Amino acid sequence: MKLYQKITLAGILGLAAVAGADAAYAQDAAPAVSPETAYIFNTLLFLIGGFLVMFMAAGFAMLEAGLVRSKNVSMQCLKNIALYSVAGIMFWVCGYSLMYTGVDGGYIGTFAPYSFDEVGKFATGDGGEIAGYSTASDWYFQMVFVAATASIVSGTLAERIKLWPFLLFTVFLTGVFYPITGAWKWGGGWLNEMGFQDFAGSTIVHSVGGWAALAGALILGARLGKYEGGKVHPMPGSSIPLATLGTFILWLGWFGFNGASQLAWGTAADVTSVSNIFANTNLAATGGVIAAMVLTQIIYKKVDVTMALNGALAGLVSITAEPLQPSPLLAIAIGAVGGVIVVLAVPLLDKLKIDDVVGAIPVHLMAGIWGTLAVPLSNSDASFGTQIVGIAAIGAFTFIASAILWTILKVTVGIRVTKEEEMMGLDKAEVGVEAYPEFARGGSSI
Amino acid sequence: MKLYQKITLAGILGLAAVAGADAAYAQDAAPAVSPETAYIFNTLLFLIGGFLVMFMAAGFAMLEAGLVRSKNVSMQCLKNIALYSVAGIMFWVCGYSLMYTGVDGGYIGTFAPYSFDEVGKFATGDGGEIAGYSTASDWYFQMVFVAATASIVSGTLAERIKLWPFLLFTVFLTGVFYPITGAWKWGGGWLNEMGFQDFAGSTIVHSVGGWAALAGALILGARLGKYEGGKVHPMPGSSIPLATLGTFILWLGWFGFNGASQLAWGTAADVTSVSNIFANTNLAATGGVIAAMVLTQIIYKKVDVTMALNGALAGLVSITAEPLQPSPLLAIAIGAVGGVIVVLAVPLLDKLKIDDVVGAIPVHLMAGIWGTLAVPLSNSDASFGTQIVGIAAIGAFTFIASAILWTILKVTVGIRVTKEEEMMGLDKAEVGVEAYPEFARGGSSI
Amino acid sequence: MKLYQKITLAGILGLAAVAGADAAYAQDAAPAVSPETAYIFNTLLFLIGGFLVMFMAAGFAMLEAGLVRSKNVSMQCLKNIALYSVAGIMFWVCGYSLMYTGVDGGYIGTFAPYSFDEVGKFATGDGGEIAGYSTASDWYFQMVFVAATASIVSGTLAERIKLWPFLLFTVFLTGVFYPITGAWKWGGGWLNEMGFQDFAGSTIVHSVGGWAALAGALILGARLGKYEGGKVHPMPGSSIPLATLGTFILWLGWFGFNGASQLAWGTAADVTSVSNIFANTNLAATGGVIAAMVLTQIIYKKVDVTMALNGALAGLVSITAEPLQPSPLLAIAIGAVGGVIVVLAVPLLDKLKIDDVVGAIPVHLMAGIWGTLAVPLSNSDASFGTQIVGIAAIGAFTFIASAILWTILKVTVGIRVTKEEEMMGLDKAEVGVEAYPEFARGGSSI
Repeated sequence: MKLYQKITLAGILGLAAVAGADAAYAQDAAPAVSPETAYIFNTLLFLIGGFLVMFMAAGFAMLEAGLVRSKNVSMQCLKNIALYSVAGIMFWVCGYSLMYTGVDGGYIGTFAPYSFDEVGKFATGDGGEIAGYSTASDWYFQMVFVAATASIVSGTLAERIKLWPFLLFTVFLTGVFYPITGAWKWGGGWLNEMGFQDFAGSTIVHSVGGWAALAGALILGARLGKYEGGKVHPMPGSSIPLATLGTFILWLGWFGFNGASQLAWGTAADVTSVSNIFANTNLAATGGVIAAMVLTQIIYKKVDVTMALNGALAGLVSITAEPLQPSPLLAIAIGAVGGVIVVLAVPLLDKLKIDDVVGAIPVHLMAGIWGTLAVPLSNSDASFGTQIVGIAAIGAFTFIASAILWTILKVTVGIRVTKEEEMMGLDKAEVGVEAYPEFARGGSSI
Repeated sequence: MKLYQKITLAGILGLAAVAGADAAYAQDAAPAVSPETAYIFNTLLFLIGGFLVMFMAAGFAMLEAGLVRSKNVSMQCLKNIALYSVAGIMFWVCGYSLMYTGVDGGYIGTFAPYSFDEVGKFATGDGGEIAGYSTASDWYFQMVFVAATASIVSGTLAERIKLWPFLLFTVFLTGVFYPITGAWKWGGGWLNEMGFQDFAGSTIVHSVGGWAALAGALILGARLGKYEGGKVHPMPGSSIPLATLGTFILWLGWFGFNGASQLAWGTAADVTSVSNIFANTNLAATGGVIAAMVLTQIIYKKVDVTMALNGALAGLVSITAEPLQPSPLLAIAIGAVGGVIVVLAVPLLDKLKIDDVVGAIPVHLMAGIWGTLAVPLSNSDASFGTQIVGIAAIGAFTFIASAILWTILKVTVGIRVTKEEEMMGLDKAEVGVEAYPEFARGGSSI
Repeated sequence: MKLYQKITLAGILGLAAVAGADAAYAQDAAPAVSPETAYIFNTLLFLIGGFLVMFMAAGFAMLEAGLVRSKNVSMQCLKNIALYSVAGIMFWVCGYSLMYTGVDGGYIGTFAPYSFDEVGKFATGDGGEIAGYSTASDWYFQMVFVAATASIVSGTLAERIKLWPFLLFTVFLTGVFYPITGAWKWGGGWLNEMGFQDFAGSTIVHSVGGWAALAGALILGARLGKYEGGKVHPMPGSSIPLATLGTFILWLGWFGFNGASQLAWGTAADVTSVSNIFANTNLAATGGVIAAMVLTQIIYKKVDVTMALNGALAGLVSITAEPLQPSPLLAIAIGAVGGVIVVLAVPLLDKLKIDDVVGAIPVHLMAGIWGTLAVPLSNSDASFGTQIVGIAAIGAFTFIASAILWTILKVTVGIRVTKEEEMMGLDKAEVGVEAYPEFARGGSSI
């Protein structure tokens, strides 16, 4: 549940707390938590959730650094810190306002930089009463989400895309595309009015990143030699421990991602919900790991660690559309299906010659669709039809807008390095700094 | 101090806060913190403490990935994400209830999956009053503890144990063994009634992991070539920076491990205690580092960085049984003894031909025993006799149960890879993914 | 703003909250947040901020491990865990009291170990009323700051300094030098009385580390071969992903560094300020990244990833002197200037033959000076003159004291390893443990 719905359902958060709105606590007539205390708690939730999600930037960087070949590792590190920076600026320049200001059931918000509360003041409601949280804390929390979306694209297109065109794409993805589809739901736009549900962003964050990545992969083409001679040539990542570290950091960050998407920490009921979300988020991830491990053992007679890692991430993406309502067993099952999707989808993409370096499309796009479809399994007020409308609308917009932009970039500045640069590795070609100058064998593998 | 004791001592946490129970604050007659605010604070403590301890899974993974040889790094990464997942499921399936539900001074709780609070509700006491914290937040916090125990085993048995039998062992360790001995103390069982003290788990978490690891190491045997020809052959770890990173992550997580074991954040007194625990936890770790460094400098004329790292961890394990009461100087001293233990015990284990790949037995078992024995140094209500009973009872149960299970696994499915697989490395043998395909020299060293 | 000023401005924090001191909230006459709740919140801020800054120790370790050559990586890891430990002990032994106890407008506090609150009690004001926060939480938060200062020195002097003399220097830096200059401002000393402003320590933490490092670099000399034959010989770092990870960890930690330096979380106004600080801190870092990237692209036609990483850090250092008052655009600009400083200063230092292995002097000293000078851009009550006095006084004291101590160490125990040891690498020479025994090519490069 995001801001708009929260407000629709419960009025000003602080006031709900004052009114002792929770029936189960009727014996305590007095205001349990003062509006100012609720303001402090809610802001706290955004800041803690925010720094956990911010750290996911490191998680994506390590995951991708571990899964590309050593000759492209510096570039992958550079792209990740650069895209986080671009997202952080663009979501202030226009992204936040496009997504959240004045959407009113429509399609887009306002084009304007975002203003934080004045120093020493705090946000107030229309009647001058204290608002639910500080505006900068909300901005911070939402900003780190859009950065996650951009990270997804970076993984899929690794090892052959040029730096600056990628960052130009990121400018539009984080400043315009993501905010527009986000506005449809979290900004209180038409999909929200229709009843589409996406608690923490299986579709709004993860699938959007996946669609942008898919459009890019199709237009950019596969890495040299990847599908040469009709065969799939494995190009193993350079460091499994870094990929593992990245996965654990992402898992950690997901507690902020899903938990703080409750958007309120000022009542016992809200805090209980956040706790349930923590538990379900963890259970779904474990389901994804175990399912991916068992399935790879059965199919391949070995347990590919990268599948276990991506299984965890797919489990997490799957539960993101609704981490609160499912029972623990359902949470495990939703995550496990995510893990299965990854194991089956990775070879499928290779069959289609779609070259997704880190498996981001199975993890974020496919498991994101699955998670969004799974919401009606636990939520009686959600309908499959509406979920499909939301998935399709957001997917179509993002895919088409991304494809157009990728094409424009391709025919103008170009998006792909030369064959020589790709063979040599992007680190030498564009970064000028090798990731492991003392021990990598460099360009030995294509 | 764990849940049971806290309840015994202070009644429902929230009520204690309402009653203004702290004598030092008598001048403020009015309820200082409302029951609902206390509920929110306590739940907050569990969730923050929980995510810090959850991240220790990454710490163990990096520590172990750094201390094994490169041919076994992928496997070590895989085992760590898998064991965290197994623990996360098993502690929901039966672990939590076996440990905490209906122990009542006895030996074991109830075999049942755990139920979280219903959505929109919150936990209440017998009289319908609001309880101290959300049930899911407590579950989450306890679950990450059991995962830490399983990680300890993984380190000791690295480089030669088969994947699936290890995970089968983990199923029982995290779902049954750990919960049973945990019930004796933290679940309010017989050891608790007797007055055994173990604030955050020097024995209950760390030694239990160490005993399970020791049983495994004895039954599994040493790595090929480790003690060949009557000599100890060093098998240096593949990446010191990853081991260092792992240690720092564990150190970070320990603030949640010890701090949130106060189990309450709703009064000024509790918050002050958590702060003191943070300070003492840090001081003990610094003591462990400095002691290990000075001692290795004296003995070996060099400062082995792995001893400094394990010194930090041993200092942390040592202070875990009582991080609140010791003076700063005593905290440093308790940690320093832990550091000394590590430096002396590592060669001792080698002399006994017990092959502990990462030094987990000195760090977690031996320093855990030391820390538990040290409690009476600061706590006048603790007795050495009772501490020894607790250490021995929990140790005996865990060691015997583990030895039986390891033996059953050995004679049925087998627990050790073949010689060829061990030479080749587990990454190629069981994972099918090399950790560093581009630069490791692979199986050059035995 | 640090403790002293906060107290000067607002009286006891808890009381300020009770009095409903914030004019913007006048419509709520009742005490909004009780003194005990404010105590809990403020302590929470210190502990959360503290563990985020504590984790910066891992960030510095990874940054430096990534930027030194593989033959010195174990040593760099060892130094970082050791210096954090030394700082943690020394700031208890005497550092905290020298900095904060009884400075009273003067030059130095009291030489004494620090005492935490008694267990079960909490800090009280002169009238017996509850104080603003627990003493141990404040100590913890301040202690992790001094550790950051020591880390800065470690990076600059890498690859040629001896272990134990470096740690001896750290004893004095963290126990005496840093506390003295800190007392001048944060302890309420003469610079504070004069109106010098340094919110979270651009000068007090970062420049102090930079001055100590500069003194060391001048006295220690450059690495063998670095400036041989009148040319600058690049000595590329061994692992860019570890350096990237370190940067992201530092970025994460900076939210605690700057955000918790608000020192109060108990009113809506304070929480709003912390949120604004989070946003501005992030914006400044992004400005540093983008500026460094664009400038290196223009100058070198490639984007050196280490410049992007140091650009982020320089942006963060730059905003640290005043992260609250600047508008978002000014925050970006302040960070961007930091990024430009790094790109220009790194070659400048090489021209001066000052060998700063990780670029800590440009990042921490130069950007620290810039950030302190930039305060009057947003704060009308700050003057350039006073800022310059503060920068100069703290710089002069730290540089001279450090130079004297480095010189004493040089002529007594010696501070530099032998040529043979430097060629062989410090890992073999002093640590006895290679960082990457299986794949580093060791001493191939000088």
